[in-house]
Amino acid sequence: MSDFRTDERLERDSDLLTKIGLCELRLMKDSRWPWLVLVPQRPDISEIFDLTPLDQTMLTFETTLVAEALKQVTGATKINTGALGNIVRQLHVHVIARSEGDPNWPGPVWGHGTAVPRAEADAKALSAKLLDALNP
Amino acid sequence: MSDFRTDERLERDSDLLTKIGLCELRLMKDSRWPWLVLVPQRPDISEIFDLTPLDQTMLTFETTLVAEALKQVTGATKINTGALGNIVRQLHVHVIARSEGDPNWPGPVWGHGTAVPRAEADAKALSAKLLDALNP
Repeated sequence: MSDFRTDERLERDSDLLTKIGLCELRLMKDSRWPWLVLVPQRPDISEIFDLTPLDQTMLTFETTLVAEALKQVTGATKINTGALGNIVRQLHVHVIARSEGDPNWPGPVWGHGTAVPRAEADAKALSAKLLDALNP
Repeated sequence: MSDFRTDERLERDSDLLTKIGLCELRLMKDSRWPWLVLVPQRPDISEIFDLTPLDQTMLTFETTLVAEALKQVTGATKINTGALGNIVRQLHVHVIARSEGDPNWPGPVWGHGTAVPRAEADAKALSAKLLDALNP
């Protein structure tokens, strides 16, 4: 993990929840959707195919783990996952809980409007529930 | 693969390119971006975590394979991958070649405007290049 440093914009836009095997798990500072981001702690990676095959498998495993926990905690209609990186090039995987009637449903969350910060108590409560679901 | 049937909307909006181990590989009928979709040939799956761990690993492997081929063929700035499924619930993974200045750059492709069909000769040429890159 030498030389890995979380991208500044990701750091600004999200809070670190925990570290899993490969990834930082971060909660986006946007109350419009329960929105997590996984950041593989590897330097200079921008595409999934830049990772080693083992790291790719780890990333899949961790994405699935987080998606299931998010579904369980939120009861969302659909989990959306995506790795875009058109703006922030450091590889990061979005895992978002979507429900009918949420902002921009059934369209994507990316690029839609402006983030609405979450109240600190709500962020704490959501984080605690997610960590519980991840470590049953 | 018994009981698997490609979703009707996916079938209408894309052409079958080939079948890889787990997935159908389809080319979206939209010339605005080189846009592929992988559809795991398993019935009644809507989330990645509904797949068995082995199928999840296969899907990752096939997504990486296709993403690398698409990058090689198009020279795109960034590959975008995503599994949303808010409209079509059958699990499918988008793999899209994005370049600076393309429609809606750096925003996402989903929900942006209306598909622009590709001329048949262009579709054939792109398909041939992609199949070559996938089977070197």
